[in-house]
Amino acid sequence: MLLNEDRLFPSEPSARRIARALYEHVRNLPIVSPHGHTQASWFAKNEPFPDPAKLLVQPDHYVFRMLYSQGVSLDDLEIGVEHVKDPRKVWRIFASHYHLFRGTPTRLWLDFVFQELFGMQERLSAATSDLYFDTIAEMLQTPEFLPRALYERFHIEVLATTDAAVDLLPDHIAIQNSGWQGRILPTFRPDAVVDPEFAGFRENITLLGEQTGEDAHSWQGYLAALRKARARFRALGCTATDHGHPTARTANLAPGDAAKLFQQVISGHSDAHQAEMFRAQMLTEMARMSVEDGLVMQIHPGSARNHNEKLFERYGRDIGADIPTPTNYVDALRPLLDQFGNERDLTIILFTLDETTYSRELAPLAGHYPCLRLGPPWWFHDSPEGMMRFREQATETAGFYNTVGFNDDTRAFLSIPARHDVARRTDCAFLARLVSEHRIEEDEAFEVAWELTYGLVKRAYRL
Amino acid sequence: MLLNEDRLFPSEPSARRIARALYEHVRNLPIVSPHGHTQASWFAKNEPFPDPAKLLVQPDHYVFRMLYSQGVSLDDLEIGVEHVKDPRKVWRIFASHYHLFRGTPTRLWLDFVFQELFGMQERLSAATSDLYFDTIAEMLQTPEFLPRALYERFHIEVLATTDAAVDLLPDHIAIQNSGWQGRILPTFRPDAVVDPEFAGFRENITLLGEQTGEDAHSWQGYLAALRKARARFRALGCTATDHGHPTARTANLAPGDAAKLFQQVISGHSDAHQAEMFRAQMLTEMARMSVEDGLVMQIHPGSARNHNEKLFERYGRDIGADIPTPTNYVDALRPLLDQFGNERDLTIILFTLDETTYSRELAPLAGHYPCLRLGPPWWFHDSPEGMMRFREQATETAGFYNTVGFNDDTRAFLSIPARHDVARRTDCAFLARLVSEHRIEEDEAFEVAWELTYGLVKRAYRL
Amino acid sequence: MLLNEDRLFPSEPSARRIARALYEHVRNLPIVSPHGHTQASWFAKNEPFPDPAKLLVQPDHYVFRMLYSQGVSLDDLEIGVEHVKDPRKVWRIFASHYHLFRGTPTRLWLDFVFQELFGMQERLSAATSDLYFDTIAEMLQTPEFLPRALYERFHIEVLATTDAAVDLLPDHIAIQNSGWQGRILPTFRPDAVVDPEFAGFRENITLLGEQTGEDAHSWQGYLAALRKARARFRALGCTATDHGHPTARTANLAPGDAAKLFQQVISGHSDAHQAEMFRAQMLTEMARMSVEDGLVMQIHPGSARNHNEKLFERYGRDIGADIPTPTNYVDALRPLLDQFGNERDLTIILFTLDETTYSRELAPLAGHYPCLRLGPPWWFHDSPEGMMRFREQATETAGFYNTVGFNDDTRAFLSIPARHDVARRTDCAFLARLVSEHRIEEDEAFEVAWELTYGLVKRAYRL
Repeated sequence: MLLNEDRLFPSEPSARRIARALYEHVRNLPIVSPHGHTQASWFAKNEPFPDPAKLLVQPDHYVFRMLYSQGVSLDDLEIGVEHVKDPRKVWRIFASHYHLFRGTPTRLWLDFVFQELFGMQERLSAATSDLYFDTIAEMLQTPEFLPRALYERFHIEVLATTDAAVDLLPDHIAIQNSGWQGRILPTFRPDAVVDPEFAGFRENITLLGEQTGEDAHSWQGYLAALRKARARFRALGCTATDHGHPTARTANLAPGDAAKLFQQVISGHSDAHQAEMFRAQMLTEMARMSVEDGLVMQIHPGSARNHNEKLFERYGRDIGADIPTPTNYVDALRPLLDQFGNERDLTIILFTLDETTYSRELAPLAGHYPCLRLGPPWWFHDSPEGMMRFREQATETAGFYNTVGFNDDTRAFLSIPARHDVARRTDCAFLARLVSEHRIEEDEAFEVAWELTYGLVKRAYRL
Repeated sequence: MLLNEDRLFPSEPSARRIARALYEHVRNLPIVSPHGHTQASWFAKNEPFPDPAKLLVQPDHYVFRMLYSQGVSLDDLEIGVEHVKDPRKVWRIFASHYHLFRGTPTRLWLDFVFQELFGMQERLSAATSDLYFDTIAEMLQTPEFLPRALYERFHIEVLATTDAAVDLLPDHIAIQNSGWQGRILPTFRPDAVVDPEFAGFRENITLLGEQTGEDAHSWQGYLAALRKARARFRALGCTATDHGHPTARTANLAPGDAAKLFQQVISGHSDAHQAEMFRAQMLTEMARMSVEDGLVMQIHPGSARNHNEKLFERYGRDIGADIPTPTNYVDALRPLLDQFGNERDLTIILFTLDETTYSRELAPLAGHYPCLRLGPPWWFHDSPEGMMRFREQATETAGFYNTVGFNDDTRAFLSIPARHDVARRTDCAFLARLVSEHRIEEDEAFEVAWELTYGLVKRAYRL
Repeated sequence: MLLNEDRLFPSEPSARRIARALYEHVRNLPIVSPHGHTQASWFAKNEPFPDPAKLLVQPDHYVFRMLYSQGVSLDDLEIGVEHVKDPRKVWRIFASHYHLFRGTPTRLWLDFVFQELFGMQERLSAATSDLYFDTIAEMLQTPEFLPRALYERFHIEVLATTDAAVDLLPDHIAIQNSGWQGRILPTFRPDAVVDPEFAGFRENITLLGEQTGEDAHSWQGYLAALRKARARFRALGCTATDHGHPTARTANLAPGDAAKLFQQVISGHSDAHQAEMFRAQMLTEMARMSVEDGLVMQIHPGSARNHNEKLFERYGRDIGADIPTPTNYVDALRPLLDQFGNERDLTIILFTLDETTYSRELAPLAGHYPCLRLGPPWWFHDSPEGMMRFREQATETAGFYNTVGFNDDTRAFLSIPARHDVARRTDCAFLARLVSEHRIEEDEAFEVAWELTYGLVKRAYRL
């Protein structure tokens, strides 16, 4: 077997016993996935997933960034190629380098997928490469591996996608009209219409105006257009927005100043500082709209996108070259919090790629402001050690109840159960340590485990 | 029972056995509390403490910040209300939300108080709220719960308060004149007369001049006045000063420049930079006076005070909205250290709210400069995980002997034994791990445990 | 005995058993030491080491910084004294303060040296000071303790020194000509000719020109001179360069601009910003030369050198007063990486004194760019806790294979086996935890342990 039943639990026997018991309590709870990057079209069309390489290697930048770091060429992996010539060869390259993933969460996720979905029992390697390829390729063509069947098999209760503000969401509409019971909900991601540095910003705003019948080139019309777009998302079950800004900077300009800044950025003549200020102002505007319409805000700052210039020019975005940067929250969020921080009906979920902020800024902020909650460890930190550091560094100040459960945040649909399983096991391991050190009573740990798995995410995301 | 005898010890049996033995060696040592915020008037007047809500909820921003973060209104908690209308209701709100504190040090402290002081055996909850309220309220009226009786019962050897430089310390004088043997010592906190941004700065300096008979509006007179105020504190047993600046910035201006800067800030026309420079200069001046008079300096930088503007306007300071900020020491302290860093008779104790500085700046600085010592984990980090991180990150570079034992730093007098108990247990747990991993010999661990509990604090604070 | 056979292994029995087995697998592998500060002259001359104080106390700033921090005077330790008057007294001061090192890696290293090299069985203290002094002094005069004999006894396969670019390496040449089989390789350290703020910068460049026959005062001649110096090092077996800049800043100026900047700095009229930009440009130039000649680059940024001004004036460099500073990599390295980041034949090894960058910047960078590798925990972090933090924080993103094994980085030749032993034990302890938590399979852990000890360093440094 690839997986041990006790994986991720503490090795000390008394703590392990407690971890097992806690895990049994939560392992079969439904999956609530309030933030991720799966495609609604999969569930609208319900067609078979393609071959193993296209499914598990080429779209997963966790996988190919590691291969690339060790000298594998992206061309050999046929990254960015529309019609892949030799998926079996791509798979073999991956299989031959599988040892690189030792000690990484990718290894844990993939072994789970291989064993639990495809029944593999021997480790992936050059020797087993073809066996894996053939087995997976064949199973993907069976009805049990169609997207809707997997959704049900995974015991998913709700699955949120992430969608541009100007996306008309045809696949979400098609799913709702299809009579299928799966809940695939959109998330409102307005980066392309609120970030002047986003490629196509001005064209996107023109399109937003056309879609909403508002004069999106005036400040008030632009805001009205955003309100209408949000309403359109809400009508399809959307409960949250998502904001992927470079920093957490917020602003709270006087209305006249905000209107002037809007005219500047819409003119195409803004500089980097004005762009930053506009994004900052728009976070506050989004908070204002959330107070009105109840959408939960998610703020995901601190990634230096497309750090590798040459690869960006050749392959575009999302090729594994986004690198975290130091991120400040305590000053950056102040303007927004001055305005809306005490709103009890507003929920803002903060994420970070800078772990130093857990104990220094994020836990103290979330342990005070009623509108703030802490998102789970994100991206590079969505891993056993990363999750453990989050609990160790945030819990003593923010408690458990200012956190919001787990996000799988993934493009890799097949890995969703694996990722939730790692999160459930790690949270149970943390709680087991607290119980075994008599820092929390066992009956309380059971309640908390349920909250971390199911209760908190449902309430925080209003699902 | 609310508390397990083995709480906070490692679960691995061999390490736990060692932790127990170490703890037995130090658990009954006297409490030395060199830094805190209890009120001398309690011990001067020796009157009963008020009701449970007023004693344990309303003054404790650790408690009500968590309640507030989860939507409880400060008005419902009657925060800032002089004549509380319904303490039983306030207590019930607290009791109903007691689950929020799972995993926090507040929970550990409070359970200790409930069990060890008030004999409670059932967990606090909505169901036991009235039982707790009535039991505690009744016991508070008994002679055993008067401040002086508790001081003795707690086995406190010395307890330092924190006092403004212009405080005439009538309660400390009254205690000394009373014949009671308790040692309640003042600490010299000059923020209000050295920080131009402190409310009432200029009036405070005028008052300082009047109290000392010096011309406090001239630079030399101002320094002379501070020297006299320090002497007044020392006469009452004070051994330390305390400095709560926004940053650790120090300066070492030429005397003429310092005098000019003083004239600027005393004129009321200084800007933020000048205020910062003046505070910076005053840390160096305070170090100079400490070289002369032997007072130990404590520097507590890095808190963004009153982050929540609306609450500050309504409720004032200390309502749980102070948030840590990134803090630099390596550049900031250089001017002071250039002048006094090699003084072997000077002691400066550094604190931080930015844990990233433990291994990067503070341990390397304290492991070199003879005047520097590291204060214990502070405020948000005064917790089992926080203390463990401090030991893990500071010890390998600074050793144990450049640290100064524990500070309870609390307004909550009743929680003092609980806090020292958590610190003793956590230090013993750390040492037990070192012993069980053969990184330190057991006989040495006993010596170190005694130092961390009693020896170091006595020597560092000159008590 | 001073050392326990199970030191540094987890106390939990199942994890300890695994750690022991892993350690047995690697404990006797040869020592590969690709970065350090031993002196080639020891091996060229092969003369006895001096007395215990001169060997183990006076050159080791880890040792005397701790003594100094606790009030011991550097004069009493006869630091910087050419003809030490009373080495026995110096040794006694050290011995009397040996308790200060409890919990530090220095203690682990020294006890290893005392027991394994000198056969001591009683702990060092005031009482055993003379016994130690006499025993060590006597043994140092025996043939078994000559440098070459120790090199062989330590089972060293290769030992790199660190050498100024203008060093003519007479000792390395002498060793090669001697017929002795030890591999003592130079490392090319050009700080003194690429950093305008280095003492003697301009004189060093003049000397470089003379040595190479190039016009080192023109930009092209200067670069040509550096190329020749590198070739001279390579001819003696050098495989790596080393760069100890204050920051990780790189630049990629147009050739004309770089030439102008060179003229500015060579004129002696550059300011701090120009000096920083020149160092930044030179890292990129060094990378360009490494692409050509295959030398591995090591970048060691982030130390505020000579922080204690008074001691620097009196005793000079390297007296324990270098303090880490916050260090940025994600922006700083971008210009160099834009140019050479995707070169698969280039190897750049990054070190840090700012542990916050492990998970935030370094692991994400090394887990993507083919040219980047992570050096082991450095200097203050070269310790059991520091190594464990590195593995915990870097592995999940960068994996094991983007790291490069261990550097002892030491002046203290006798401590080399001790330091490698601590690293091997700590890595085995980390792997044992992964195995016992079923995050990696045992057979894989054996392979990884071998890589971390021997395979990775050989390949990364091209040895």
